[in-house]
Amino acid sequence: MMRPFKRLLSREEALAIISANVRRIERVERIPIEASAGRVLAEDISADLNVPPFSRAAMDGYAVRAEETYGAATYAPKRLRLIGRQNAGEWFEGEVGQGECLEVATGSPIPRGSDAVVPMEYTGLIGDIVEVRRPVHPGANISPEGEDIKMGETILRRGEILTPGKVGALAALGRDSILVYSKPNVAVIPTGSEVRPPGSPLGRGEVYDTNSYTLSALISAHGCVPKRLQVVPDEPEAIRAALRMGLDQDLVVFTGGSSVGTRDLLAEAVEEVGRVLFHGLQVKPGKPTLFGIVEDKPVFGMPGYPTSCLSNAYIFLIPALRILAGLPPYEPRRVRGRMAERVVASTGREQFLTVRVRDGLIYPAFKESGAITSIAQADGYTIIPINADVIEEGEEVTVTLFE
Amino acid sequence: MMRPFKRLLSREEALAIISANVRRIERVERIPIEASAGRVLAEDISADLNVPPFSRAAMDGYAVRAEETYGAATYAPKRLRLIGRQNAGEWFEGEVGQGECLEVATGSPIPRGSDAVVPMEYTGLIGDIVEVRRPVHPGANISPEGEDIKMGETILRRGEILTPGKVGALAALGRDSILVYSKPNVAVIPTGSEVRPPGSPLGRGEVYDTNSYTLSALISAHGCVPKRLQVVPDEPEAIRAALRMGLDQDLVVFTGGSSVGTRDLLAEAVEEVGRVLFHGLQVKPGKPTLFGIVEDKPVFGMPGYPTSCLSNAYIFLIPALRILAGLPPYEPRRVRGRMAERVVASTGREQFLTVRVRDGLIYPAFKESGAITSIAQADGYTIIPINADVIEEGEEVTVTLFE
Repeated sequence: MMRPFKRLLSREEALAIISANVRRIERVERIPIEASAGRVLAEDISADLNVPPFSRAAMDGYAVRAEETYGAATYAPKRLRLIGRQNAGEWFEGEVGQGECLEVATGSPIPRGSDAVVPMEYTGLIGDIVEVRRPVHPGANISPEGEDIKMGETILRRGEILTPGKVGALAALGRDSILVYSKPNVAVIPTGSEVRPPGSPLGRGEVYDTNSYTLSALISAHGCVPKRLQVVPDEPEAIRAALRMGLDQDLVVFTGGSSVGTRDLLAEAVEEVGRVLFHGLQVKPGKPTLFGIVEDKPVFGMPGYPTSCLSNAYIFLIPALRILAGLPPYEPRRVRGRMAERVVASTGREQFLTVRVRDGLIYPAFKESGAITSIAQADGYTIIPINADVIEEGEEVTVTLFE
Repeated sequence: MMRPFKRLLSREEALAIISANVRRIERVERIPIEASAGRVLAEDISADLNVPPFSRAAMDGYAVRAEETYGAATYAPKRLRLIGRQNAGEWFEGEVGQGECLEVATGSPIPRGSDAVVPMEYTGLIGDIVEVRRPVHPGANISPEGEDIKMGETILRRGEILTPGKVGALAALGRDSILVYSKPNVAVIPTGSEVRPPGSPLGRGEVYDTNSYTLSALISAHGCVPKRLQVVPDEPEAIRAALRMGLDQDLVVFTGGSSVGTRDLLAEAVEEVGRVLFHGLQVKPGKPTLFGIVEDKPVFGMPGYPTSCLSNAYIFLIPALRILAGLPPYEPRRVRGRMAERVVASTGREQFLTVRVRDGLIYPAFKESGAITSIAQADGYTIIPINADVIEEGEEVTVTLFE
């Protein structure tokens, strides 16, 4: 039962296996644009109208026939008769005739007959006569119909992530709903006969479920929907049943199984109905991390210790979640700083050291891989290369921030 | 009516005024920890229990009396009688007596009588006799009760932002709900007699509301809840009524009012019942941005042009939203790259140039401040300093990403 790990894979090998075996889900749904920021567009969006939908004034001023302003100067103004005023949202039914002008506000339609706008500041008003003090050329201070977007033009494409600006563009095109890729559903299955959900009293020998909450928060932050299942005891039939139930979702993450025996239960359950693609990584903490495919769906087994689970989820689970959701690779923020104290590393495995960042100095937050304080207070992690023995005090390191 | 702007403020002056006049809201609410990631904690969290809640095995192996292993070696093993097996989640009622040991799994309680765990790999099992091949010291491979967190210790403090790791720490302490600061509600009020909501047909001279959607997406992304009000026509009484209605929320943002006249309507409405703290900025686009305080609540007037509105919201509105929500200052991601083409800047005003980033080259995305394509396709903006005339092709610039 206590089967040894097969060859331990490096982080890079594991990530390559994950990206080769996870694909975007193809389920789509129609949602209102109000709820679409951050979502992945599942249709091309082309314009059903010109933007602007009509030629409009780009300044407050007077709509004129440009040629009638030629030669205008401060001391030799051209005089035009004001035939009315048109605000944005109004539609002047008349026409600007010879020797005439119409007051327009920014955004208001350009009336028939006129072909330019003289800005307010280059004019004076005496009774119903407008004095134009500078000439304008045809088209001056006008945004012509379709200048920005021409009807039929494709503005956004399937697969794009909707930023606030793109949501605004959808609105500008008059779209109130769009097709997006559905958020993948992720089964989160805590295991361990000693594990109890928070909010209930602990019996002797029991501890609270931590990892399914950590993971669910991470899953929500990366475009997926966590579905937390009940805690599963360390028994073969229970693990098998939980796996079957988890496969109703798009991805399954088991967490817990801190003992070698429990980890093997999951590996065996996956092997029975699918394939284990790796089980065991050359990283610390996180050696027992498991990844497999069952019925085309990715299955992860995360380490049971909270710090191991969290750092392995940042490194291995997030990439899978984002591929599934159609999101671009995660680019976490990184900061550089100097180690505040000497850290002895374990050679032969790449080490993820959880750290705190204070005033540019980097302090190890890691107490032991079970430590809750470590995940509660860590700002991020730094990677100690596979063959490093030690990081000296004052050595510069890069910290990837937990966010 | 067409009142000129007073002195134009710099970006820094405007930001200083905003941060001096906006405070975190003090409303709190109790929520389940499942929904707490990203929220701001409104209570100190101290531990109601020790973590771990009992001394437990840190390895799979045998619980022993350490002194009985002294002198053990591969070819001179110490022999102990196996009195049973205890998994995680079980509680062994007996005691490990002299010459005895108990099999334990990682995470299982340390039975009475024993004071160390010999890892499985340093043992052999013959019938009910365990051969111990290495000595262990007292406490070896045990996580003692309270090692990580001692009952009564404060683990998280009011004002902290709940990361996935901190949510996990709450779970580990058995908390299923917590007090957080409520998300501020933000009234978003589109103005303009020509503005119609998307999803409805456009009449002549009308355009679709863009900015209230852009702003709502941004407001959601920065810890607040947008409450979009109906489009308000450019009329004094309508603006006044919308302001009154908006003041039911924690912050009010008007958008639109592209003409000078409309902008003045808002300034007048704010002055009647509160104070305008600035109206007019030395930035392009965005000159007309307005900020005031009414009944202790911040009121913004954003420019009407989509690109102006969006870039000014990134720069001036987000800081206010985050203060209100109790979030730390936004640190957007920045990238550096070389300008792909020469850009002529307008001197005398700081210019926010929306740009696209492609293969490390920076292209202006800005067509004109009304351009929807500009906000749809821009990846971010670069700031052209107030006295720069031009950015040369190949010059290196910093781009702040829209995200």
